[in-house]
Amino acid sequence: MKLNSLNEEIIGHIKTLLADDYHEELKKVLSLLHPVDIAELFNQLELEEAIIITSLVDKNTRPGIVTELPEDILLRFLEGYSAEEISELFIEEMDSDDAADLLNTIPKNLSKEILAVLKDRDFAGQIIKLLKYPEDSAGGLMASEMIKVQSNWTLAQCVDEIRKQAVEVDKVFTVYVVDESNILLGLVSLKKIILSPSDQLVSNIMEIDLVVISVYAEGDEVVKLMRKYDLVTLPVIDALGRLVGRITIDDVVDFIQEEADKDYQMLSGLSTNVSNQDTVWRLSKARLPWLIIGLFGGLASAWVIGGFEEAINRNVQLAMFMPLIMAMGGNAGVQSSSIIVQGLANKTMENKDLLKRVLKELSVSLLNGTLTSILVIAIGMFLSNYQITAVVALSLLTIIILSSFIGTIIPLILDKYNIDPALATGPFITTTNDLLGLFLYFLIGNLILG
Amino acid sequence: MKLNSLNEEIIGHIKTLLADDYHEELKKVLSLLHPVDIAELFNQLELEEAIIITSLVDKNTRPGIVTELPEDILLRFLEGYSAEEISELFIEEMDSDDAADLLNTIPKNLSKEILAVLKDRDFAGQIIKLLKYPEDSAGGLMASEMIKVQSNWTLAQCVDEIRKQAVEVDKVFTVYVVDESNILLGLVSLKKIILSPSDQLVSNIMEIDLVVISVYAEGDEVVKLMRKYDLVTLPVIDALGRLVGRITIDDVVDFIQEEADKDYQMLSGLSTNVSNQDTVWRLSKARLPWLIIGLFGGLASAWVIGGFEEAINRNVQLAMFMPLIMAMGGNAGVQSSSIIVQGLANKTMENKDLLKRVLKELSVSLLNGTLTSILVIAIGMFLSNYQITAVVALSLLTIIILSSFIGTIIPLILDKYNIDPALATGPFITTTNDLLGLFLYFLIGNLILG
Repeated sequence: MKLNSLNEEIIGHIKTLLADDYHEELKKVLSLLHPVDIAELFNQLELEEAIIITSLVDKNTRPGIVTELPEDILLRFLEGYSAEEISELFIEEMDSDDAADLLNTIPKNLSKEILAVLKDRDFAGQIIKLLKYPEDSAGGLMASEMIKVQSNWTLAQCVDEIRKQAVEVDKVFTVYVVDESNILLGLVSLKKIILSPSDQLVSNIMEIDLVVISVYAEGDEVVKLMRKYDLVTLPVIDALGRLVGRITIDDVVDFIQEEADKDYQMLSGLSTNVSNQDTVWRLSKARLPWLIIGLFGGLASAWVIGGFEEAINRNVQLAMFMPLIMAMGGNAGVQSSSIIVQGLANKTMENKDLLKRVLKELSVSLLNGTLTSILVIAIGMFLSNYQITAVVALSLLTIIILSSFIGTIIPLILDKYNIDPALATGPFITTTNDLLGLFLYFLIGNLILG
Repeated sequence: MKLNSLNEEIIGHIKTLLADDYHEELKKVLSLLHPVDIAELFNQLELEEAIIITSLVDKNTRPGIVTELPEDILLRFLEGYSAEEISELFIEEMDSDDAADLLNTIPKNLSKEILAVLKDRDFAGQIIKLLKYPEDSAGGLMASEMIKVQSNWTLAQCVDEIRKQAVEVDKVFTVYVVDESNILLGLVSLKKIILSPSDQLVSNIMEIDLVVISVYAEGDEVVKLMRKYDLVTLPVIDALGRLVGRITIDDVVDFIQEEADKDYQMLSGLSTNVSNQDTVWRLSKARLPWLIIGLFGGLASAWVIGGFEEAINRNVQLAMFMPLIMAMGGNAGVQSSSIIVQGLANKTMENKDLLKRVLKELSVSLLNGTLTSILVIAIGMFLSNYQITAVVALSLLTIIILSSFIGTIIPLILDKYNIDPALATGPFITTTNDLLGLFLYFLIGNLILG
């Protein structure tokens, strides 16, 4: 059995073997490791060491390693090779979708050079086609490799076709049935091929109730369909109904996680995709934009409050409840916007529900605003200053409703103009809510306290 | 071809047919729909209508519908049936994992009754075994249905076994090889079975480098392994290495999305899993807990500020920069905690890195705190009041470092005690940071302004 994952001991052993140039022994150890784990190992190696490791592993293992390298390590690693070497050692053995992903990651010039020197011109053509689709569209997620058969073939012919393509297509679960013009007609599962007599015609056993997706559909749409119908593969067709590729669920799993991570980071005020593994400088850079927005928001708040200096002078207690108003407005706004963003991301909501949605949010915020205001009044009874209590309770109700409204409407508007609605969950909108909240609070304070 | 999804027209048509009792025509329309879509349709039907629809669809379609119903609709729907009917109409035709999920969702009494009347006692036993595992463990995610073969069989025998179990096991991609004691030895892909001669021995072609998981492993661990090694199915073994089930990627996809949604909602201050489809009351209830925490946090802030009433009286400008300090502390804290929570969720971080992690966060916050403080000083130059500028800049630096520290340490501590670290991203910690920030700000203010 292969070793299921790396541990300190194995890493130490490999490093010793590297230092001592025991290449034969190293080869043996590496053959026990999964390519994914070798990729993980590169994290801890010098470029020269990684190149030696690569030269010692099996030819078929190499693409698997390169596919799994994180972007920064991949870029450093590839510097050790010429375009010709990259093409021959790695690209030629890859699936078309992995190759396209890799070429999308590296600098444009290098990517062009690699495509130019790629010996298998058919494969180069396939990759170039894939590169045309946006990375997060169905076309960007699909691979061109798949088994295609004709409906008038026998199963024996199907098996021959599978055999012919067995090397190229790694994971086979289904065989797609097309006509002479490559129009998708149906599919046959491998299970059915095994269980049916080999002289059976494809047309007699193929399933024709297919779930398909257009090559230009968005990644979200792919996720929705594959989740909804519990699909493992999804055939991709062009505008004419011709089969152009297939998406496998393992690629979609990574996409789901990346999208979820992106929304989460937006909500937590991180501007780029970072992980706890990144350098201090990169982590700092990802946070600074939001901190600076927050800073200017804070200065703007100071300016708003400055306009009410006299009111505070007359009644210092007014200053005491500023944090309460700000916190409640912020919370209510984020609650509303994040539920909208999630609805849009999971496609459980359509933008056309706009009015219904806004009315619903208003009802929820009216209810919550009223309940918390009543709580404030109840607590205020024990605190004696009725006027301040009235100001806080009234402001609270107003601010919760207003923040919810803004939190609802902004992501919907952003989505309408094809801007990522998750932007509306970042500190940008919190800052706006803070300013508006403070302004209204002091306005109401001035009205009631005179 | 089946209709790929519901639209208003089909729904309208079905409702008319229901109203007019045109059951034969209804049968035809329903046969064109995917069970998932029929489940979606139930959203818009009365109980009686849903029961009529169920009686008209094919026997094999029924479990697919019930599996896909959202919890609230499922519970209402099942009220139309007795335990015997539920067992016969739905449970008996389900996969063991779906049956266990359903029984986990409904009231305990009903679930026991259904298991008691289930005719297939072997199947009842399988379900009871699955019910023992925590829902989000490998055991809770797996199904018991799979094709098992012996290593000394020929491929022809394998095909016979697949044929025997073909009805029970829906999605077959691989066949698992076990010995007489049910110890997992390897696997054979369907592709290999198709491409090898039928008198070939299983032991000659089986793959033995397997990725496996223990039945008690956590769901996160399952996700990590399946993502890392791009697996479509993962065999589950018990402590003795015996094969007890398999997990398919489609179940894991739902798990990934649910986990991501949970963390997102925690971060945005929603206390239970809600969607924009929920009722106003449910939406309101999910938000109230955090709003009330925020309210008491705000009252506590008022109390802290009240302690510095004199300082504000002497220097009203001090009140102006409270929002800035609070916003910055809040942002920095959430940034730190969410990156830790995400690291823990994606298993890219181990709790043992504690010291390293804290030091890194401190460096990042020292850097960001210094940069934003310098910005404050630069802006303060134009504003004349040097003392206030000094108070704000110094407080800012302190608060950013302190909030980051708290944001880092709290989720790590929660995780250590097996409490969901995502709790640390909710308004609870923001409120703590607000209080601490204000207190320090006024303390520094008192020190510098005298």
